[in-house]
Amino acid sequence: MSITQGLRRAMQIHRSGVATICGDRRRTWTEFGHRVARLAGALGNLGLGAGNRVAILSLNSDRYLEYLYAVPWAGGVLVPLNVRLAPAEILQILMDSGAEILVVDDACSAMLPALRREPSAVRRIVFAGDGPLPEGCCHHEEILAAAPPAADAQRAGDDLAGIFYTGGTTGLPKGVMLSHGNLLANALNVLALLHINDETIYLHAAPMFHLADLAMTFAATMTAGAHTFLPKFDPADALRTLQENRVTHGVFVPTMLNMMVHRPDIHTYDLSNLQAVMYGASPMPEALLARVMEAFPACEFAQGYGMTELSPVATFLEFRHHRLEGPLKGKLRSAGWAAPSAEVKIVDAQDDEVPRGTVGEIVVRGPMVMKGYWNQPEATAQVLRNGWMHTGDLGTMDEDGFVYVVDRLKDMIITGGENVYSAEVENVISHHPAVSMCAVIGIPSPEWGETVHAIAVSKEGFTLDPESLLAHCRDRVAGYKCPRSVEIRQQPLPLSGAGKILKNELRQPFWEGRARQVI
Amino acid sequence: MSITQGLRRAMQIHRSGVATICGDRRRTWTEFGHRVARLAGALGNLGLGAGNRVAILSLNSDRYLEYLYAVPWAGGVLVPLNVRLAPAEILQILMDSGAEILVVDDACSAMLPALRREPSAVRRIVFAGDGPLPEGCCHHEEILAAAPPAADAQRAGDDLAGIFYTGGTTGLPKGVMLSHGNLLANALNVLALLHINDETIYLHAAPMFHLADLAMTFAATMTAGAHTFLPKFDPADALRTLQENRVTHGVFVPTMLNMMVHRPDIHTYDLSNLQAVMYGASPMPEALLARVMEAFPACEFAQGYGMTELSPVATFLEFRHHRLEGPLKGKLRSAGWAAPSAEVKIVDAQDDEVPRGTVGEIVVRGPMVMKGYWNQPEATAQVLRNGWMHTGDLGTMDEDGFVYVVDRLKDMIITGGENVYSAEVENVISHHPAVSMCAVIGIPSPEWGETVHAIAVSKEGFTLDPESLLAHCRDRVAGYKCPRSVEIRQQPLPLSGAGKILKNELRQPFWEGRARQVI
Repeated sequence: MSITQGLRRAMQIHRSGVATICGDRRRTWTEFGHRVARLAGALGNLGLGAGNRVAILSLNSDRYLEYLYAVPWAGGVLVPLNVRLAPAEILQILMDSGAEILVVDDACSAMLPALRREPSAVRRIVFAGDGPLPEGCCHHEEILAAAPPAADAQRAGDDLAGIFYTGGTTGLPKGVMLSHGNLLANALNVLALLHINDETIYLHAAPMFHLADLAMTFAATMTAGAHTFLPKFDPADALRTLQENRVTHGVFVPTMLNMMVHRPDIHTYDLSNLQAVMYGASPMPEALLARVMEAFPACEFAQGYGMTELSPVATFLEFRHHRLEGPLKGKLRSAGWAAPSAEVKIVDAQDDEVPRGTVGEIVVRGPMVMKGYWNQPEATAQVLRNGWMHTGDLGTMDEDGFVYVVDRLKDMIITGGENVYSAEVENVISHHPAVSMCAVIGIPSPEWGETVHAIAVSKEGFTLDPESLLAHCRDRVAGYKCPRSVEIRQQPLPLSGAGKILKNELRQPFWEGRARQVI
Repeated sequence: MSITQGLRRAMQIHRSGVATICGDRRRTWTEFGHRVARLAGALGNLGLGAGNRVAILSLNSDRYLEYLYAVPWAGGVLVPLNVRLAPAEILQILMDSGAEILVVDDACSAMLPALRREPSAVRRIVFAGDGPLPEGCCHHEEILAAAPPAADAQRAGDDLAGIFYTGGTTGLPKGVMLSHGNLLANALNVLALLHINDETIYLHAAPMFHLADLAMTFAATMTAGAHTFLPKFDPADALRTLQENRVTHGVFVPTMLNMMVHRPDIHTYDLSNLQAVMYGASPMPEALLARVMEAFPACEFAQGYGMTELSPVATFLEFRHHRLEGPLKGKLRSAGWAAPSAEVKIVDAQDDEVPRGTVGEIVVRGPMVMKGYWNQPEATAQVLRNGWMHTGDLGTMDEDGFVYVVDRLKDMIITGGENVYSAEVENVISHHPAVSMCAVIGIPSPEWGETVHAIAVSKEGFTLDPESLLAHCRDRVAGYKCPRSVEIRQQPLPLSGAGKILKNELRQPFWEGRARQVI
């Protein structure tokens, strides 16, 4: 199993089919494949050896996709970087990964002076943008044009394909090592459940450094589907691109779907080509899902639950389980079944499986489980125990094997000895008609240990008052789960590059100088 | 990747769903899974150790399926035996594989005295039938009931899952070693292209010892589809079972489809539940395919081309490529595209890829390629070269990446220096309205080396004369490809257990005492 096999298959079965549509640039699979082989040759010319790392700091583009194939083709290892990180954080990852080649685009080249301030292993910087060449860089198109095509290094199976850094928002970032086999195991699960083929047109809407997007990238290529790109997510751009490029498949995080469906002009777009949307990376409030299903009536939905360490999908809620009415209605709150080649179970603190319906930690085994964290054997040993990846997520499984993600272990609030799952309370708050976004966190309390604190953003054109919100909650959840304090904001909450609400940032002002106990 | 993971997934997502329907016996996934764990315990009690072989000599049944899971669950290796072999051939395989446990059913227990005549490694014989217990055997149900459930031995990935003997009709049989990863790679390709899920009801119509059936077995279980069984293929039984058990999916070899669609009462059966038929194991004459598509109008068709050594599918002709009219019409003659995780190319004698449209040997690379032949490193080295499995099949690839199987390398006829592909001539002959079955072979000729000889079986109620057949051929293929001699038979041609015409047997009377040169 090798990432590059998928590219060769696309070149074989759809040689004159469209591979990439990026702004005005359009390339066939033959053109794309030949560019990848030459780009791999160029990386070799820059000194890339087997297992050497190439860091990519770029918005989404066809050139980004070229690296995703050229780096393994040249025998190297991908290090896609989160473009939302601060230069100091990027530098930390460059040093940790030991990347010798760095790729930047127009948007990210401004960071170069800051990145050069401290020494890292980076020897060469390639500029993959369209603007003027930054100082000290070589140009993507020039090195590609000058290089002879390289032979595929044939890395496969357990060979390291990429290091994907997570947790870059606090603490030391961890580099998740994924092999070719890991990424292909996920691609085959995606193929089994979504209907992807050479007629697919896939929109890279989520950032390409993120596994939510990569989950589809390798599957779309191996079936010779076309790729099209949003440099970065913007709801109007997304809707326009969906229409203009006749996009059939997309992956979105709930925040993106939320922004799209709340645009007043949503109904003016022709989205009739859109066949399938996979969503994930964070739980989707039910109210939002109903609204999205209404906004894209011709579209089927699938949810993927997982994490970078799982390449990334561990469970799928399939198309036919997305029903707002009927016997399957309740399943919509779940994250679905274990992916075809995954094993999922819910365990207690002793790693023993708990009875169905009982909350425990979600653990996963299978060919999609990462090799470990780069240079962090202790962190690896903490999560990979007895052959199972310990996700740190709390969940339950029902009698039918559907997995319900209850909360992040670290986001669970313990108040007066009771466990409150922030996601449950957020789900309730999100149903309030005046709420566009919310987060529920635990804040310190001398009396209760922690108390439940809600932060809600009001919808444009609506007035939201704390009392009405509290009354809404009191009607719907047990008293001990109701927020003890509420904060209303007009501005969106801080998001990670992947569109997740940064709860650590929200918690920080409350916990300054104190340690929050996490079980 | 492990065979047993699929069973655990089925037990998790469909615990009270139907797992097996075998005659009057019906079991849920929970029942089936618990029986497998106890059967594995029983095998352990019989002394089965890690990597020990268990040979199975049985017609299709739910108990056969129990062994397919219990043997790996217990840490053992499967050796499914072709029930059509002679006792001497079976004995040869028992000795070659070193199987210590043998499983037989009612139909095959008659062979036991012959098998006991010579010493083999077999220490214990389990009777998995319904009739009286043969002497010296223990009973499947008794040992199962008495055993505690075993823990899964957790064999996975490169661990050997089974040894599958091929070529048992002439020469020394070769044991194809397939790993858990091999079989799962195939199952995931099947999942990606056929629509299998927990609503699937799969009919085991082809013999369960054959990879054509196993190809679907593991895929159906991992999605918690139900299994139903024909002990052995009979067209009337097949049609009745398709109707009664509301079968949705089946795998058939062309000979079976031929027998079904030529039954005069075919239209009296309700086959409306049948959604998908995968066919393969030998090329399908176009005339037959058209007739089959007409007989099962609600059904989609997929072709799988491959061989035991490829676990078994290397290429798929997908549902949407089965069109009798329109731009895809010609593709129906092909075996389709490389399976999602396979690489396929056509090479010359120097292993260099030939231009599209040129005939060469079909070679395959990927996670489905066998580990090798059991205890036959030389035979392994002959076919596994430079990482590619050399199929011994001749084929071409068109501009769109579709693979056309032209002939077996050994069935190609060289007459007067010209290559004649027997399958091409057979395809023409099969279009003759009075022909139900045919084979074209090379027979020795002092003048031409070989000449083309046709053997045709006349359809019931039709008269077939050699002259009309020759005239039919002359109108449709080049003169040098036309048979020089024709033989008309009333009786069916000899078939292998997998439904392939035994050309070696047909050639034998002509070649007695001479060596046929095969390139």
